[in-house]
Amino acid sequence: MRATLIYGAGDVRVEDVPDPVLREPTDALVRVVRSCICGSDLWPYGSRPASAQGDRIGHEFLGVVEELGADVSGLRRGDLVVAPFVWADNTCDFCREGLHTSCRHGGSWARDGIDGGQGEAVRVPQAQGTLVKLPAAADPALLPSLLALSDVFPTGHHSAVRAGVGPRTTVTVIGDGAVGLSAVLAAKRLGAERIILMGRHKDRTDLGREFGATDIVAARGEEGIAHVRDLTGGDGTHTVLECVGLRPAIETALGVVRDGGVISRVGAPQYPEVPFDFGVFFRNVTLTGGVAPARAYIDELLPDVLEGRCEPGKVFDRTVGLSEVPDGYRAMADRSALKVMIQP
Amino acid sequence: MRATLIYGAGDVRVEDVPDPVLREPTDALVRVVRSCICGSDLWPYGSRPASAQGDRIGHEFLGVVEELGADVSGLRRGDLVVAPFVWADNTCDFCREGLHTSCRHGGSWARDGIDGGQGEAVRVPQAQGTLVKLPAAADPALLPSLLALSDVFPTGHHSAVRAGVGPRTTVTVIGDGAVGLSAVLAAKRLGAERIILMGRHKDRTDLGREFGATDIVAARGEEGIAHVRDLTGGDGTHTVLECVGLRPAIETALGVVRDGGVISRVGAPQYPEVPFDFGVFFRNVTLTGGVAPARAYIDELLPDVLEGRCEPGKVFDRTVGLSEVPDGYRAMADRSALKVMIQP
Repeated sequence: MRATLIYGAGDVRVEDVPDPVLREPTDALVRVVRSCICGSDLWPYGSRPASAQGDRIGHEFLGVVEELGADVSGLRRGDLVVAPFVWADNTCDFCREGLHTSCRHGGSWARDGIDGGQGEAVRVPQAQGTLVKLPAAADPALLPSLLALSDVFPTGHHSAVRAGVGPRTTVTVIGDGAVGLSAVLAAKRLGAERIILMGRHKDRTDLGREFGATDIVAARGEEGIAHVRDLTGGDGTHTVLECVGLRPAIETALGVVRDGGVISRVGAPQYPEVPFDFGVFFRNVTLTGGVAPARAYIDELLPDVLEGRCEPGKVFDRTVGLSEVPDGYRAMADRSALKVMIQP
Repeated sequence: MRATLIYGAGDVRVEDVPDPVLREPTDALVRVVRSCICGSDLWPYGSRPASAQGDRIGHEFLGVVEELGADVSGLRRGDLVVAPFVWADNTCDFCREGLHTSCRHGGSWARDGIDGGQGEAVRVPQAQGTLVKLPAAADPALLPSLLALSDVFPTGHHSAVRAGVGPRTTVTVIGDGAVGLSAVLAAKRLGAERIILMGRHKDRTDLGREFGATDIVAARGEEGIAHVRDLTGGDGTHTVLECVGLRPAIETALGVVRDGGVISRVGAPQYPEVPFDFGVFFRNVTLTGGVAPARAYIDELLPDVLEGRCEPGKVFDRTVGLSEVPDGYRAMADRSALKVMIQP
C-alpha cells in the first residue's frame, strides 16, 4: 500500500510500504477513508533534520474496519470508525479519568513501529479502546466533521473544558488556525458569552465569526493586548485559549487574562519556559491545558456533529489525494490552506 | 507609638512613628493585640538594598477596634478583629468572586503610605470589608490560631482549594515551613486521603504529622522525587502544594505530580520562569495558585478554629515583644524559629 513518510524539513514523500497485518489480538486493520494534515505536523515539516530513513506521519483518520484481532469486541468488519489521535485501552485508571493521552497501554501514532494515519490503511493497536464506531450510513457530507473528531475539534474542546468555559465566561482565543477556530466553536458550544478571536487572516476570522466569535482582534503583541483590554473594560477575559504554541502567544495570553483567570494551552509548546513570575502569582492566574485526550470527548461531541449542530469540518478548505499530500503540506506551511483533508 | 521598620537586608528596627489617625471615612484604627512575622517578610530581610529611610513591614495582625470612620458599619469600638493580609472592600466583583487580592479598591499593607502590622496600632483602610469580627470573649489560648487566619492558614488552604484537594486526592506538600505545614492541615481538613510532606527538619515534620501528613520525605531533588514516586506506585500525586517559592521547588513539583495533576503554588515565587515545556504539556499538568485571598476563607475556617478542630496557631513556636522583633527576624532567618508571634 501507499503511505506518507517524512524524511526531513520540507521533505514529505508518498511511498510504497508493506501492507499492515494484525500483530496482536487487540489490533484491528482499518482502511482509511479520510485523513488529514495537522498543524502539529508542520513542526517536524519545518525543522526535522534530514535522514536517509523516512518515518510514517499522521495521527488523524477515519475509515472502515477490515480485520479484527481475536480480542476485539464491539466492532465488526465494515464498521465506519474514527480514531482519536492517540491510541489507548480506554480501561485503565487514566482513561477512566478521561486522560487517554496518559493511557498505561497506549501511545502515539507514527512512532515506535506504529503506523501513521496519512496512508491507505493502518494497524490500530488497542482497537477496542481506541476506535469509535460511527453510523454506517453516515452522509458523505458529514465526513469532514466526523474526521474533525479525531483531533482538531476535541483539541479546541479540551482547551475550553480545561479553562472552565461556561455561560458566564468571557474567552480570548489566540490563533486563527484550525485549532483556534475549533476552540471558538467549542467555547460557543459551551455557552461562552463573549469570544474574542485574535487572528489576522480575514478568511479564517470570518469562519471564526461563523463559529461564534463575537469580536476579532487582528493586532498582535502589546497592541493586541491593549485592544483586548479595551474590549473588556481593562480587565481581560476570564479564560484564554492559547492555540498557537509559540512564546509570544503565551506572553499575549498573560497580557489578556483577567486576574484569577485561566490560560489553557493546546498549541504544542515550542518553548521550554513560561514567564510565570511574581506578578502572575499575585494575579492568581492558572496555566492549564495540554495534549487533548480526544477519545474522552468523542462520545459527547458526536451527536452535535451527526445532527448538524456543529460543523467542525468547515476547517478543511482543501482536499487532496494521497499522491498530492506533499502539496498539502506546502499549502498549509505557506498558509494558502487552513487545513488539508486527504482522500486516499 | 512604636512600630517595626525595615531599612535593608538584615536591618529591621523598632522605632517611634506617628500615631495613626483616621484619614478616610472608611478607615478604622486597630490596637494590635498579636502580630507575627511571615516567611515572605524574609525575602526583603534577606535581600533588600539598604536605604536611609525605613519602611513599615508586617501584614498579619489581630487587634481591638479603637476608632471607626463614619462610613464603617458592622463594627464597634472594642471589637476583637482579625485583618487578612491584604485590605479590600469585600463588595467589588473580584471580592464577590473570592479574589480579594485583586480588589478594585484594595491594596497591600506596609506600602504606599499604609501602615504595617508589626506595630502597636494600624490604620485599616476599607475597614468594613477588611476586618473580620471575632468573638469578644475569645479564649487567649485561641489567639495564635485566630492570628493564623490572617495569612498562614488561609494561604495553606488556598493552595489546597486551588489544587482541588478532596477526599480522593493524593497530595504532596513541598516545604516544611509554616505555610507548608498549614497546607498539610488544610489538605487534611479537606479530606485528602494521603499527604506526603517533603521537608527535612524533624521538629517541623513532626508537627506536619500531627497536622495530618501520612508520609515524610526528607530527601530533595532527584532523590526526593524518586522517593515520592516510589510511594505512589511510580505515578506521583494528584496534587502538589508548592510552599517554598524557589525554582528547585517548582522543579520538584513537576517531578512528583501525576499526569493530569495540579501544582498549586503559594510560595511567593523568587524565579521569573517556570519550565513548562512540551513534556509537561503532554502530561496535562496544571499550574495554579497565587497570593491567597485570605478574606475569602476566614468565615469558612473560623468555626473550626473556635471549636478547636483545627489548631493552625501551632506553627508559632516563639513569641516576642515589639522590642525583640529584630531577634524574631534573626530566629526565623536562621531557622531556629518556625514562625514568630509578636505581642506588642
